[in-house]
Amino acid sequence: MTIDRSTLRWNAWGTAGHQDQFAKADALWAFLADALKAPLPVTPAKTLAESTLASSALAFGDLAPFQDAGCDIGLTPEDRAFHARGDSYRDLLDLRAGKLDPAPDAIVYPKTAEACQRAVELADKAGLAVVPFGGGTSVVGGVTPLKGRHRGVIAIDTTRLAALLSIDRTSLRATAEAGIYGPELERRLNAEGVTLGHYPQSFEFSTLGGWVAARGAGQQSNRYGKAEDWLVAATLATPKGAWRTEDFPASSAGPRLTDLVAGSEGTLGIISEATFAIHERAAARDYRAYLFRSFEAGREAIREIIQAEIPAASLRLSDEDETHFFGALSRLTNPPKTMHKVEDAYLKLRGFGGAKCALIAGTEGDAALVAYARARIAEIARKHGGMGVGASPANRWFKGRFHGPYLRDPLLDRGVGVDTLETAASWADIPGLYAAVRGALLEATARVSPGGGQGICLAHISHSYHDGASLYFTYLWPRATGGLEAEVAQWEAIKSAASDAIAANGGTISHHHGAGTDHARWMAAEKGARSMAVLRALKAELDPNGTMNPGKLGL
Amino acid sequence: MTIDRSTLRWNAWGTAGHQDQFAKADALWAFLADALKAPLPVTPAKTLAESTLASSALAFGDLAPFQDAGCDIGLTPEDRAFHARGDSYRDLLDLRAGKLDPAPDAIVYPKTAEACQRAVELADKAGLAVVPFGGGTSVVGGVTPLKGRHRGVIAIDTTRLAALLSIDRTSLRATAEAGIYGPELERRLNAEGVTLGHYPQSFEFSTLGGWVAARGAGQQSNRYGKAEDWLVAATLATPKGAWRTEDFPASSAGPRLTDLVAGSEGTLGIISEATFAIHERAAARDYRAYLFRSFEAGREAIREIIQAEIPAASLRLSDEDETHFFGALSRLTNPPKTMHKVEDAYLKLRGFGGAKCALIAGTEGDAALVAYARARIAEIARKHGGMGVGASPANRWFKGRFHGPYLRDPLLDRGVGVDTLETAASWADIPGLYAAVRGALLEATARVSPGGGQGICLAHISHSYHDGASLYFTYLWPRATGGLEAEVAQWEAIKSAASDAIAANGGTISHHHGAGTDHARWMAAEKGARSMAVLRALKAELDPNGTMNPGKLGL
Repeated sequence: MTIDRSTLRWNAWGTAGHQDQFAKADALWAFLADALKAPLPVTPAKTLAESTLASSALAFGDLAPFQDAGCDIGLTPEDRAFHARGDSYRDLLDLRAGKLDPAPDAIVYPKTAEACQRAVELADKAGLAVVPFGGGTSVVGGVTPLKGRHRGVIAIDTTRLAALLSIDRTSLRATAEAGIYGPELERRLNAEGVTLGHYPQSFEFSTLGGWVAARGAGQQSNRYGKAEDWLVAATLATPKGAWRTEDFPASSAGPRLTDLVAGSEGTLGIISEATFAIHERAAARDYRAYLFRSFEAGREAIREIIQAEIPAASLRLSDEDETHFFGALSRLTNPPKTMHKVEDAYLKLRGFGGAKCALIAGTEGDAALVAYARARIAEIARKHGGMGVGASPANRWFKGRFHGPYLRDPLLDRGVGVDTLETAASWADIPGLYAAVRGALLEATARVSPGGGQGICLAHISHSYHDGASLYFTYLWPRATGGLEAEVAQWEAIKSAASDAIAANGGTISHHHGAGTDHARWMAAEKGARSMAVLRALKAELDPNGTMNPGKLGL
Repeated sequence: MTIDRSTLRWNAWGTAGHQDQFAKADALWAFLADALKAPLPVTPAKTLAESTLASSALAFGDLAPFQDAGCDIGLTPEDRAFHARGDSYRDLLDLRAGKLDPAPDAIVYPKTAEACQRAVELADKAGLAVVPFGGGTSVVGGVTPLKGRHRGVIAIDTTRLAALLSIDRTSLRATAEAGIYGPELERRLNAEGVTLGHYPQSFEFSTLGGWVAARGAGQQSNRYGKAEDWLVAATLATPKGAWRTEDFPASSAGPRLTDLVAGSEGTLGIISEATFAIHERAAARDYRAYLFRSFEAGREAIREIIQAEIPAASLRLSDEDETHFFGALSRLTNPPKTMHKVEDAYLKLRGFGGAKCALIAGTEGDAALVAYARARIAEIARKHGGMGVGASPANRWFKGRFHGPYLRDPLLDRGVGVDTLETAASWADIPGLYAAVRGALLEATARVSPGGGQGICLAHISHSYHDGASLYFTYLWPRATGGLEAEVAQWEAIKSAASDAIAANGGTISHHHGAGTDHARWMAAEKGARSMAVLRALKAELDPNGTMNPGKLGL
């Protein structure tokens, strides 16, 4: 295990020692109260001691075989609380209200891939459901310990499977055990001069196996690929035995079954090892920002950059409200006011005094590639009315690129609900999808806000493809009063409205968060009955007793 | 149907009117006789009238429902002969020997996607096996009409499903019926200013659906992708009903089931429609040739180009023997001898007088991309000792890029066996794989050549990836005498030796030809028992009666 779990908060993001930089930012809270038209009451989370947690359904005799097979066992309230939920808003509502049930009856920590395989088989034979657990940062209910029709449920925690097994410098591939955390994996790869380059917002606290299981995307996915792109092969511990998939660079010997592993969310087995594409560490890197007069203009610039095959690493375009919100946030928490006035005057002069959209364009690679890509991006940005505003806003974003999740807990402490969702669609469908989801979120947050309050909706494009792009929404609203049930109902109303808008407008229910329990309800409509039958047939082959992560993916 | 089938040869490549440019090239035949250490006897193919073809097992009453469902029916000997085999060497042995059995009992031509779906369901209910048939150019026995445990077998020929249904210029996607032939598809796309860019050697006579079913690769796959890369979504006619897969640019809502369609070889259903990525037609294009002192030097240049993310469209490196062979072929059939002498003197002066390897490097795209890629490729080629020899050898290759298959029939007419196979592996495995397969082919062809003859083995790299590349082998040998059985045994001995060498040295049994019947025997070892069980479970879900293309993929 490459992070000491006792240093992490069980019901919030980050380490126990994390300093909340927003608690005393009064100007920020005033700005938010104004935007949400709501008072911001203090709404603290319950402590572990104040929480309810049923006793484990398992006895010593149930767990001894796992120990004999080479696993450690966790049974403390702290351990069960840590594994009781993931990091979705819905999860935090439960945790903060002290509702830990359902919690896993025990945590099983395999110390080797073989022990992991044995643990899965033991659980399958003992009639226990298994929740595969890496970093536990799922934001879609991917690790909720549902026991289905089983007599109990255990979490199999992979974080003691943390070895970097091999690096092939010629083929630019590496193989690692799947429970390795992001920072440790990159540290070890970097020491050899290479990188995977997968930096999701959860990077600090998520694992290789989790990235694959959820079909995740890092912030530089344009260069390094999404999990399904960089995954070369995987080994899964399934109830039917270990399953290793093909590892060819390309093949036509039937369908590539490695493709079924990315996005399987533990429903077929536990990913115990993964082989993945690596890159030489980038010799050069250039991140810079542009302002556009509209989201549409910025979007068309991204489309042209991507369709012209220009090797960008990252293209991140915020809509008007997100650009405004994060601009305000930055000013309210970093206040040299004279500088802001000069900036404002300059922007006004250049015609960017009103609403505007910020694009962060990053390129990484060798010096010649970066020079080529930077010049072409600049040229296309100009063509679409974009104005270069230099490297410093981009570098600020880069420095703070893992900060997002830390904002959530202080907001929840002050009566503000906040959630994110993301989708993807073809370029032709993106404008309608953006308008529909944004409209649904603003309508729903206003509808469910107590006492005349309203929501805020921010959006960006952060992953783009030849034929389409993702849309990422962040939305805030005044939390319902009246306790957990009312808050869950409030969240569900917002989530349903947005998800229905996605389904009706050509979007996928998730671009990189996964399906989990939160999206299960929309899976059948998206995939179709035939595809769901195919997924069920796959699961029945590898997991005939339904042991693996019940209730996820709509299966 | 966009090619009139009556204009095509039923037992050879191309149209009936095709002029064999090699029949009278005496110098070429002398060169080959010398290289193969064998006389080159005249070995003509049988005519259709001389061939044996059992009567159809089906009666009018069996076929009427297909007609009622909107299909045409083919029952003539010409039609059954055309659909009796694909275009593998093994297939040609049968066809040229007049052995047409097993042949399909009837050919069913659906006129709409709905009729195709109905035809599959009708066959399934009637206990007839179905061979999906597009252009019929499989070189691995992908369309062999095996009836399995069924009472008869029909070919469902998709070539009347040839509509280009839609073009989305914004998302750069198009949708077409799957039976459209390559030239007609590109003609219609080009008329709108776009291209799919998929140009396999079989391009003139193969179909969109066949490319997807076999997980094919075009010669510019570095830019346009392999079939599994450019396929966005597909509709399949399965015994359980129509199956439409997801069409998002990316998603994490479970595994992407479109990935299962590429390489399914008709075993799950018939691909009736496909949605695929398109590109604006390239404004610029640059193809040029380099000579390297060794295959290894050229291979390392390709690896560096690809791993530096330089946007090449095509990188094709011939080994020493292939470079020599095609050089000789070109000189023997285009003889201005003085020019050759000047060339030879120049090459000797530059140190390329002995063995050498030719690389054709092509880039396509907008002018800036082509300029960037060309310059970087030239720089890396130089670094590895490559010498630029200009655009004309590359343009000659480009002009003749569909000529390969036309060479086979004249060789077969003169006692020469010729076959190709291809594989792919990680860069680290490529040197060992190349040596092992080449060694196995030379050993086996010598072993099975009659009367002291020997084989020739040519190889090239034509598709490259971040983590590996393909290897493509062409091999010639003196044909066995003594009739079909002896010739099949001779071919099987060579094929087995090469395939075993592939399996033992980290290669896949096929990079882009598919598995068909010829590779079925190696599938289980390559995929593993668990993966084969997954494939069988998939098939059982969509095709519970085993109606669809029995005997392919090792299923």
